[in-house]
Amino acid sequence: MYRTLSLIFALFFAFQSFAQKYPADPASLVNPFAGTQRMGHVFPGAAAPFGMVQLSPDTDSVQMLVDGKYNKKVYEYCAGYQYEDSTICGFSHTHFSGTGHSDLGDLLIMPTTGKLRLNPGTEAHPETGYRSRFSHQDEAASPGYYQVLLQDYGINAELTATERVGMHRYSFQKTEEAHIILDLTAGIYNYPGKNIWTFLRMENDTLLTGYRQTRGWARTRTLYFAISFSKAIQNYGFERIENPAYNGFYRKFDEEHNFPEMAAKDVVAWFDVDASDSEPLMLKVALSAVSTKGAMKNMKTEIPHWDFDAVVQKTRKSWNGELNKIRVEMMTQEQMRVFYTAMYHAFLSPVVFNDVDGQYRGLDQNIHQADGFTNYTIFSLWDTYRALHPLFNLVQPERNNDMVKSMLAHFDQSVHPMLPVWSHYANENWCMIGYHSVPVIADAIVHGNFNGDLKHALDACVQTASYRPYDGIGHYMDLGYVPEDKSSSSVSKTLEYAYDDYTIVQIANVVGSSDVAEAFQERSKNYENVYDLEIGFMRPKLSDGSFRKEFDPMNTHGQGFIEGNAWNYGFYVPHNAERMIEMMGGKESFAAKLDSLFTMEIDDEHIAHNEDITRDGIIGNYVHGNEPGHHIPYLYTYTDKASGTQEKVRMILDEMYHDAPDGLCGNDDCGQMSAWYIFSSLGFYPFCPASGEYVIGSPLVKNAEIRLKDGKIFKINVKKQSPDHIYIKEVRLNGKKLANWILPASEILKGGELEFVMSKRGR
Amino acid sequence: MYRTLSLIFALFFAFQSFAQKYPADPASLVNPFAGTQRMGHVFPGAAAPFGMVQLSPDTDSVQMLVDGKYNKKVYEYCAGYQYEDSTICGFSHTHFSGTGHSDLGDLLIMPTTGKLRLNPGTEAHPETGYRSRFSHQDEAASPGYYQVLLQDYGINAELTATERVGMHRYSFQKTEEAHIILDLTAGIYNYPGKNIWTFLRMENDTLLTGYRQTRGWARTRTLYFAISFSKAIQNYGFERIENPAYNGFYRKFDEEHNFPEMAAKDVVAWFDVDASDSEPLMLKVALSAVSTKGAMKNMKTEIPHWDFDAVVQKTRKSWNGELNKIRVEMMTQEQMRVFYTAMYHAFLSPVVFNDVDGQYRGLDQNIHQADGFTNYTIFSLWDTYRALHPLFNLVQPERNNDMVKSMLAHFDQSVHPMLPVWSHYANENWCMIGYHSVPVIADAIVHGNFNGDLKHALDACVQTASYRPYDGIGHYMDLGYVPEDKSSSSVSKTLEYAYDDYTIVQIANVVGSSDVAEAFQERSKNYENVYDLEIGFMRPKLSDGSFRKEFDPMNTHGQGFIEGNAWNYGFYVPHNAERMIEMMGGKESFAAKLDSLFTMEIDDEHIAHNEDITRDGIIGNYVHGNEPGHHIPYLYTYTDKASGTQEKVRMILDEMYHDAPDGLCGNDDCGQMSAWYIFSSLGFYPFCPASGEYVIGSPLVKNAEIRLKDGKIFKINVKKQSPDHIYIKEVRLNGKKLANWILPASEILKGGELEFVMSKRGR
Repeated sequence: MYRTLSLIFALFFAFQSFAQKYPADPASLVNPFAGTQRMGHVFPGAAAPFGMVQLSPDTDSVQMLVDGKYNKKVYEYCAGYQYEDSTICGFSHTHFSGTGHSDLGDLLIMPTTGKLRLNPGTEAHPETGYRSRFSHQDEAASPGYYQVLLQDYGINAELTATERVGMHRYSFQKTEEAHIILDLTAGIYNYPGKNIWTFLRMENDTLLTGYRQTRGWARTRTLYFAISFSKAIQNYGFERIENPAYNGFYRKFDEEHNFPEMAAKDVVAWFDVDASDSEPLMLKVALSAVSTKGAMKNMKTEIPHWDFDAVVQKTRKSWNGELNKIRVEMMTQEQMRVFYTAMYHAFLSPVVFNDVDGQYRGLDQNIHQADGFTNYTIFSLWDTYRALHPLFNLVQPERNNDMVKSMLAHFDQSVHPMLPVWSHYANENWCMIGYHSVPVIADAIVHGNFNGDLKHALDACVQTASYRPYDGIGHYMDLGYVPEDKSSSSVSKTLEYAYDDYTIVQIANVVGSSDVAEAFQERSKNYENVYDLEIGFMRPKLSDGSFRKEFDPMNTHGQGFIEGNAWNYGFYVPHNAERMIEMMGGKESFAAKLDSLFTMEIDDEHIAHNEDITRDGIIGNYVHGNEPGHHIPYLYTYTDKASGTQEKVRMILDEMYHDAPDGLCGNDDCGQMSAWYIFSSLGFYPFCPASGEYVIGSPLVKNAEIRLKDGKIFKINVKKQSPDHIYIKEVRLNGKKLANWILPASEILKGGELEFVMSKRGR
Repeated sequence: MYRTLSLIFALFFAFQSFAQKYPADPASLVNPFAGTQRMGHVFPGAAAPFGMVQLSPDTDSVQMLVDGKYNKKVYEYCAGYQYEDSTICGFSHTHFSGTGHSDLGDLLIMPTTGKLRLNPGTEAHPETGYRSRFSHQDEAASPGYYQVLLQDYGINAELTATERVGMHRYSFQKTEEAHIILDLTAGIYNYPGKNIWTFLRMENDTLLTGYRQTRGWARTRTLYFAISFSKAIQNYGFERIENPAYNGFYRKFDEEHNFPEMAAKDVVAWFDVDASDSEPLMLKVALSAVSTKGAMKNMKTEIPHWDFDAVVQKTRKSWNGELNKIRVEMMTQEQMRVFYTAMYHAFLSPVVFNDVDGQYRGLDQNIHQADGFTNYTIFSLWDTYRALHPLFNLVQPERNNDMVKSMLAHFDQSVHPMLPVWSHYANENWCMIGYHSVPVIADAIVHGNFNGDLKHALDACVQTASYRPYDGIGHYMDLGYVPEDKSSSSVSKTLEYAYDDYTIVQIANVVGSSDVAEAFQERSKNYENVYDLEIGFMRPKLSDGSFRKEFDPMNTHGQGFIEGNAWNYGFYVPHNAERMIEMMGGKESFAAKLDSLFTMEIDDEHIAHNEDITRDGIIGNYVHGNEPGHHIPYLYTYTDKASGTQEKVRMILDEMYHDAPDGLCGNDDCGQMSAWYIFSSLGFYPFCPASGEYVIGSPLVKNAEIRLKDGKIFKINVKKQSPDHIYIKEVRLNGKKLANWILPASEILKGGELEFVMSKRGR
C-alpha cells in the first residue's frame, strides 16, 4: 500500500513544470529521521505543518522517576523516539520537536495480535508486553506520513495527520485476534502519579471519546479526544491500575468488560476487532484541549471520510506549500535534503491550539474564543526568539502575527502580569530565563507583521519586564543587575534582560512612547554592570556590588551562567556588539578572543555539564548544540575580521548538520537549530532580532527565492559558489554594493535581489 | 448584628395582614436543627430553596477510610454536622440533605485568629488545629441564615446564601492576626486520594478563583469557584500536602508565599486579613460546575453588592414564597413547626445545576446550554419517587417539569441508554435499585406537568427499562423475575421493576402507544413470579425457576431484599394492591398480616442490619425510617379495615417526627421522609405515583390550603379534629361524599375543597 503511495507521488510530481533549479516536490527532500539519533530530540512521525497532532512512534517507555529518583535516561526520549532502539511501544499523538525537557506523548495506541498484553514489556524482552520489534529497513517517513512493519505482529502500520486529527491504517495479516491497545498510562517524561485522571466513553461500537489529565511539565493539562474506528469493536475492556476507594459501579455491572465507561487515575484499555478479512483497520484520533465535543467537531471538519491516502496527499500538499516558501538550489543533494529537513523542523512548532470553531483553553483554564486569530501553543522562547520567529517574520508572517496574539492572550489570562516564558498547552512551565516573548513581539512589530493593538502589546511587554517577583527582576530593577547571591545564573539573566529591554525600546519607538523608550534604553545598558574589566569577562556580581570572588570562566555550573560559561554565554550583547567589543578591549583583541573560543581545548568534564549538546556540537569552546552562542559566529563582522564569520558559518553548516539520523548536533529546540541553518545557508542571520537588521554571513546556497507576504520575492544569487569558495568578495543588493555587513530588514521585505560573489580567500 | 436582624423580621411580618389562621412568616416556624442529631442526616446551614450552595458547618473531619478500611463512623457525617459535637471545623458549601451515603462538603472555610494552623485538629484537642469549640446556646439558624460564635477565636460567624453564591460575615474581636483557612483537602466521605486536583488563582488582592476535582461517590466531579473578599488580603500562601515530582515553579519564585497560583492534588490555603478595625470580614463564594468564569457570572448576577442583611432578607422572602405553597393550621405549635420544617427539608433538593447563563456540565462532561429549562441535580430516586416528586407535582409543577427535563438531558448525555438512577453533579453513582426516573416522569405526565417531548420521554423510559446489562434487567426480561443466583436483592428488584413497568404503561397510554402499553402491562405483573404461595411471602427465586431453599422472611440480609425483609419490603405492589392482597390470602387475612407487622417483636440483631434507621424509626417490624415501607400504613385501605391506616398514619405523624434535633427517625433522604409527613398531615398520600390517584389517610391539620398552578387552590377542612379523633367518619370532596378511599389527582388539580369529619372511633 505505502509503496503504491510513493509511486503516486513520484508520478504526480514528475509532471509538474517547475523551474528546474528548484525542487518540484521539496517534501521528497525531507528526512524526518534526521536528528532522531542521540540529542536531536526530533520525532519521525506524521504531522501537518504546525499541527497539534504529531503522531509518532515511541520506542521505549522510559520513566522519569525510578524509585522516586530522576532517571537521566529519560532525557533521550524527549521526543519519544531513539533511532538506535529496536522496538516500538506504540504511536502517541503529541510530541515536542527537539526540546531538552519534555511532556506529552499522549494517547499511545498499539495494534497487536494474539495474546492480549496490557504492559509495554521491555526492549530486551518485547514478547513480555505489547511492544513489537521493528527494523529501519521496514520503516519509511515523509512529511505527513510514517510507516513501519511491526514484526512481532506482522502488522503494517501507517500514520498520517491533519492539524487536529491523526489517522492510523493497520494492515493485519489475517487474524481473528486483533487488538488495539490504548495505554493511557503511557507518556513522555512519565512517572507514577503523573496522570491526574483518565476518562473514556464508548459512545457506540465505533466511537470512543474521553480525556486524559496530567500533571507534568504542564502542571494542569487536559487533553480531550475522540477516536473513530473503521470497524465495529467486538469486545473491549480495560485494566485499572489502582483500585477505586469508592465505586458504585461494581454493584450493577461487570465494569471492566464491554462496559462503556472507563475512568480512573490510570487506565489501559483494549479493543478487539475482527481482522479476518483483508480490510485494514483505520482509526481517526481527533484532539481538543476544550472538550470531547470539540474533538468531534475537529474530526468531522478535518477528516470527514475514511480515505487515508487522500489525507496523506492533502497534508503533503500542505507541506509543499510551506516548504516552497524558500526555494533553494544548493551544491549537493545532501545539502538540499538538510535544508528542507530544516525547513520541515522549523514548521513543526508552535502548534495550532484551538478547535476548528475557534474555542481554546486559556491559561486560566477557562474556554475562550480565538477572535480574529489562530491560537498557538508550545513557545520555547529562550530558544526560538533568536532565529525561528525571525524566520517566521519573513516566511510565516500571518502565523507569527497569530503567535504574538496568542502570547498576548496568555498575558491577558495570566494571574502573573507576564507574557509566556516557556508555555505549552494552556500552562506556563517557566523553563529557562529571560522574558523572550518581548523580542518576538518586537521583531514582529519591526517587520510590520503585527496587526493587533500596539499599545496593549507595549503594555504587556513593560509589565512583563517589571514583574518584580519573577526570577530576580526586582533586584535587576533596583541594582541594574541580577545579584548572584539572590538569584543564580545571574549573568545570563542580566545579559538576556538587557537585550530584552532593548527590544522594548524598539516597540516604544514605534508606538511613540518616549518615556518607555528612555527608561528601557537605560535598562538595556545593564550588561555593562556585570562586566569585570579586570579579568575581561562577564562575571557574577553580588548584591553588595562586588564581583563574586570564586569564579571560573570555563565552568558551566554555578558560575553565573545557565547552560554555558563566561566564554560561550558571556558575549551576549546583540543590541550593542560594538560597545561590548570596545569594553572587552577593542576589535583586534576581541577577534583574537573569538579565535581562542573556537580553538581552545576543553576537557570532557566541562562538556559533560551541558546536557543539551554532544561532543559533535562543539568547536573548541563554542557550543553550536545549544542556543546562547548562536550569534557568536557572526560577531566577527563587528571586528575587522569578517572572514572569521564566513569561515565559522560555513564550517558549522558543513559539520553540524547532516542528512542522517545523527544529523543534528544538539536539541533542535522547536526549530531554532534548524532556523539557524536556514538563515545561515541563505547568507544572513538575525544577529539582533527586533533591530530591523540582519548580519551577512556566508551563503551555502547557489540560488534561493524567499517568498514574502503580498507575493514579494527576495532572491539570492551566489556567484563562484563552491566548497572552497567560502569567503565573500562582494555583496550587492539590487545591484548596489553593500557598504557593510548589515542587511536591513526593510530591504528584504520590499523584495529584491542579493548577489554574493564568493572567493577562495578571506578579505 | 444577627439579633437586630431577627428583630427586623419580627417587625416586618407583624405588619402583614395574612388570614390569621395561617402563619404570616412560615420561615419562622422552620427548625433547621431538627434532624441534625443521629440519623436524620440533614444540615442546619444556610441555603436558598433548591439552591446549589448549601453552606453549613461541618462538625468533624471524619474520614471514610482509616488505614485503607471503611470507617463506619463516617456515616453519621453524611451532612457534615452532628448535633452532639462540640467543635466546628469550618463551613463548607455543598451538602446532601438527609442521604444515607455521601460526598460533597466542598470548599471548607474557617476563620481563625492567632497562630496559623492548617490542620483541623481533633474534637478532643481542638487547640491542635484550626477548629473551634462552639455551643448551641451561641448558635442560630433559620431558612437562609446560620450563625454561630466560634469560641476559640471570639469570631461571630454568619452565613447566608442565594442559589449559587454563599456569603459569610465574620465579626472578629479586634485582632491583627486574622486568617481565613480554605482547606481543599476537607470533604465529606473523604479519604486520602479522593482529591484528583485542586487549583487556585489569586486574581487580585480580593478575588480568588479555582476548582476542586474529586473522585468519590461522584466519580469525576469538578467544582469551580470564585471567592471575593470584602477586605484586601495582606499575605497568603498554601501548604501542599504532597511534593510535586516535576515542577518548574520553584526555580523562579517562592511558590508557597504570596504566589498567586496554588495547584496540587491536595492544598490547604490561608489568607491573612487585617481585622484591627471594627468592620467584619465578608466573603462571597460563588460556585459553578462549568468554569471559574461561570462562577464569576453567578456571583455578579446573584450578589453584586456587599449587603449581607439584604441577602438574608431576600432568601428568607424566597423561602416564605415556597413555604406558603401549603398553608396549614394545626393543633399545636410543635406540629406547625414540624410541618414547615418538613416543607423546608422537602425544598432543599434536587438543586439547581446550571450557571445563571444556562450553561451546565452534562453527564458526558461536556458543557451544555439548558435550553428552555433549569437543570437540576441530586436525584435520589429510589427514595424520592415515592412522595417527594408527587409533592412537587402539586406545589412545584414547574420545577418538577424542569427536573424531568434534567433527567431526559442526563439520558441524552449518557453512554448507557438510561435515565438517572442516583445521580449528582454530572455523575451517575448507581446507588440503590430500580429505574425510578420512570415513575417520576410518568407522575409528572399524569399530572399534566411535563411540557416536553412525550415520545422522547416514553422512548427514554422504554430504553431504560430494556437495558439488559443493568442490574439483572436482562434476566428479568428473559425470566419475568430477577433470579437471586444471578443478581442479589432479586425480590426487591423484581417488585420495583414491576411497579416501574406499570408507570411506563401510564405514559404509553397518554402517548397512545398501545404496543408499549401492552408489553409493559405484561411486565408489570412480574411481581407474581416471586410470590411463594406455600409460605405466603415474596421469596427469592433462582434462575432454574425454583424458590431458593434457605429463606428467612425476617432477615434483612441476603434474603432477596435490600434494606428490608419479606415483611417490610415484600408488600410492594402499589399498582395492584388488590391483586397482591388476593394473592396473599384475601383482605381479612392481609389486614391481620399488617397488624402483625406493626406489632411483632423483633430482636435487635435484625434491626442492626439496617443502617439507615434507628430503633425509634420502627413500629414492630414496620420501618418508617426507610423508604420501601412508606406506603404500608395506607395498605389497610385496600382491606376492609381502613381504620388501620388512620390509626397507623396518625401514630407515625405523632411519634416519628418532632421539633427537636433528633426529630427525624431516619435519613430524611432528600426530603422523602418530610414529603411523607406533608402528605399524611394533609390527609392523603401518593400510594401509587403515576396512578393519578391518592389514598385517603388521616389528616393532622385542622385546615390547609394547597396552592396549585394557575392560581388554583385546594382546601382541606377537618372537622372535629383532635388528638383522639384520629378516625374518619366522612370525607367530602366539594361537598360530595367520597365513595371510597381514593382521591383522584384530577380533582385536586382542579382546585376545590376536601372536608374530613373526624371521629374517636374507627369504622
